[in-house]
Formats: sequence, C-alpha cells, structure tokens
Amino acid sequence: MPKLWNETIETHRRAVRDAILNTTAELTAEHGLRSVTMSQIAENAGIGRATLYKYFPDVEAILLAWHDRQITEHLRQLAEVRDQTDGAGEQLEAVLRAFAHISRQSRGHHGTELSAFLHRDERVVRAQQRLHGMIRDLVSEGAQTGVFRDDIAPDELATYCLHALTAAAALPSEAAANRLVTVTLSGLRDGHPTPDDRRPTSRHQHQERHTERSGH
Amino acid sequence: MPKLWNETIETHRRAVRDAILNTTAELTAEHGLRSVTMSQIAENAGIGRATLYKYFPDVEAILLAWHDRQITEHLRQLAEVRDQTDGAGEQLEAVLRAFAHISRQSRGHHGTELSAFLHRDERVVRAQQRLHGMIRDLVSEGAQTGVFRDDIAPDELATYCLHALTAAAALPSEAAANRLVTVTLSGLRDGHPTPDDRRPTSRHQHQERHTERSGH
Repeated sequence: MPKLWNETIETHRRAVRDAILNTTAELTAEHGLRSVTMSQIAENAGIGRATLYKYFPDVEAILLAWHDRQITEHLRQLAEVRDQTDGAGEQLEAVLRAFAHISRQSRGHHGTELSAFLHRDERVVRAQQRLHGMIRDLVSEGAQTGVFRDDIAPDELATYCLHALTAAAALPSEAAANRLVTVTLSGLRDGHPTPDDRRPTSRHQHQERHTERSGH
Repeated sequence: MPKLWNETIETHRRAVRDAILNTTAELTAEHGLRSVTMSQIAENAGIGRATLYKYFPDVEAILLAWHDRQITEHLRQLAEVRDQTDGAGEQLEAVLRAFAHISRQSRGHHGTELSAFLHRDERVVRAQQRLHGMIRDLVSEGAQTGVFRDDIAPDELATYCLHALTAAAALPSEAAANRLVTVTLSGLRDGHPTPDDRRPTSRHQHQERHTERSGH
C-alpha cells in the first residue's frame, strides 16, 4: 500500500477515535457514568456498534482514553504557558493561574463518581508527577534568584502549591481562583518581593541575602 | 428501675460499643474494608454475634459510627488547642499544626478504599464545615489585628488553608508537616509580621495601616 493511503487511514481512525471520546465524555457528563451504554455512544457518534467495538472494549476504556487525552493536552498547555513567560517568578505565577483555570473547567465535566473512577488511573499519578516536577523546577530556579523562599526544599513547596490549588475547583469564580493563586504564591514568597514591588533600576539589588550566592 | 441501674446499663453499653468500634477499625486497617465480617468482629471484641447485631446491622454501619467518633474527638482537640492559646495568629498556627498532625496520623488508618467509603458520609461534610468556620473566624480576627492579610476574604483564606494542609497526609515526616504549616501561614501573612518579629514593646504598633480600624 502506498504511504499516502496509510496516512489517510490513520487520519480517519484518529477522527473516529476523537468522535468516540468526545461523545462519551458528553454523554457521561450529562447522564452519569453508570447509565451510558456502548449502543448510545455508537449512535451519538454516528458509527455502527461493530465499529465502536473495534476501537474500544467498553465504556470505561473509552473514558480512560478520553481522560488521557485531556491530561496530555493540559500538560502541553501548562508547558506552553511556562515557555511564553520570562523569569521563574512570573513563569510559576502564569503556570499556577493556568492550572487553577483548568481545575475549575474540569470540575464541570466530572461527577464525583466519574472523577473517583478516573483518578484511580495510573496515568493520572504520572501526570501529577510531571506537573509536580515542572512546579518544583520553577520554585527552585526562583529560590536561586531570590524571588522565592529558600528555607524549605522546592520539592515540598511544589507539594504545597498543588494541594493549595485543589481548592480552585470548589471556588465560585475565576476571580476567586486568581486570589487563591495570589495567596498560594505569597506562601512561596514569604515576604520576598513580588515583581511589582521592584523598581526597574534596583531589580537585582532587592534581596541582599541572596546577592552573594546567586552572583548578582 | 432505680436511676443507678440505668447508669450502669448505659456505661456497659458504651463500653461494648467502644470495643466494637475499636475492633472493627483495627481489623479493617489490617485486612481491608471488604474482607472483615461481623463474625470476626464479634470474636475479636469478645462478644456473641447476636449481641453484635443488637448494636449494629453491618460492618459499614460500625465503620461510620467509628469515623463519627474520630471526627468528633478531632474537632474537640482542635477547639481545645485553640482555647489554650492566646491571640488569633498564635491560635491559628496552633490549630493548623494540630490539624496537620491529625491528618498524618489518620492516613495510617485509612486504606484508599476505606477512606473513599468514609468520606462519602454527610457527617464528614458537616465536620469540614465546622473546621472551616473555626479557621475562618481566626483568620478574620487576625486580619482585624493586623497579623494576617486583609485583602482577601477570610472565607477564601480558610478554604486555601484547608486545601493546602491536605498535603500533610502525604508528607514523609512531622518536620515536613510543620514546614507545610509554616508555608501555609506565610500565604496568610503575606509579609505581615510573625509573632517572633515583634518586640514586646511595640506589639501593637507594628501595622500602622491597621491601627485606625482595629482601634489600637
């Protein structure tokens, strides 16, 4: 078979798969995890039941695949936000705000039962570890340049961040979620100046006790 | 029947009930939620099966009663810690340290399955609301006396505290849990002085912007 044909097949398969994932996520959000059947999914996705079973063995497998796609996309978004910003302090702030936003959006999708089911998945644990690593590295960088506290290990501070931000899902507004990020960052700064406090001319002289080590 | 007899009966019933709760908690922690039977519980508590069924219909009912007793005791401990300390800043610190300690102790008892089962209980929600109220009141008092930030509502700050401290259960040591409390409190202080920073002679002059409102 020519390569082009394989690519066409692959594109088609991905489109069908995406349609199955989207349809299942919508049906589950609407009717609950237990009441959605493979027949309903096939019908709503506009494919035959036999075709559906060629892709997935059951509803739970579809939901896990959907969740995996969501997680991958969210990690990609957070890495993008980080890379579009300069300076560890500003980068961490941008990442935490984006994460709080994602947490708030995701809660609409998840019933308690669905959420409990999905979070037993190992892939969630691995994604949380990657996110934890991303935050830890930014905290570590910020501690070295004097924007974050350095009396507590970055690893522990990252754990603190992630747990504090789980509150975002329960907050009533984006504004409240932003205030949560502000408070959480205050915990990391512990009186170290925020970017707003620094005058441009004295940007690198604000933390005397860090001057020697960070080489400013 | 004379009153004394009733009291004796009541004391006996409470002792049997406590023995049932303790035994069930131990067996569940050891063998898991699903594998513990009413017969095992009766045997380990040193009572007959018929007696056990006069107290509780099934294992789940016993576990819920046990958890209810734990929650009530923990809330009592936290209120006691608060009342034995002076000043909202110090009180909140003491309460959060005690709560982090309790969270760490409780994790040993809970398998994931047991924990998930117990936390579906409504009483847990009510207990969390009471704890939230306790923290909110201390934050509010501290904001008025200038030890905590006042740019964000005490209610939101209490939500932040409780979520941040859920990290305690996952931390490897009491020392790490104490550092978590320190970071969490930094978020509430946002550069407002800690008790250690204040000289005794200037205890009430340290926060000029709060002087008027709080009447110092």
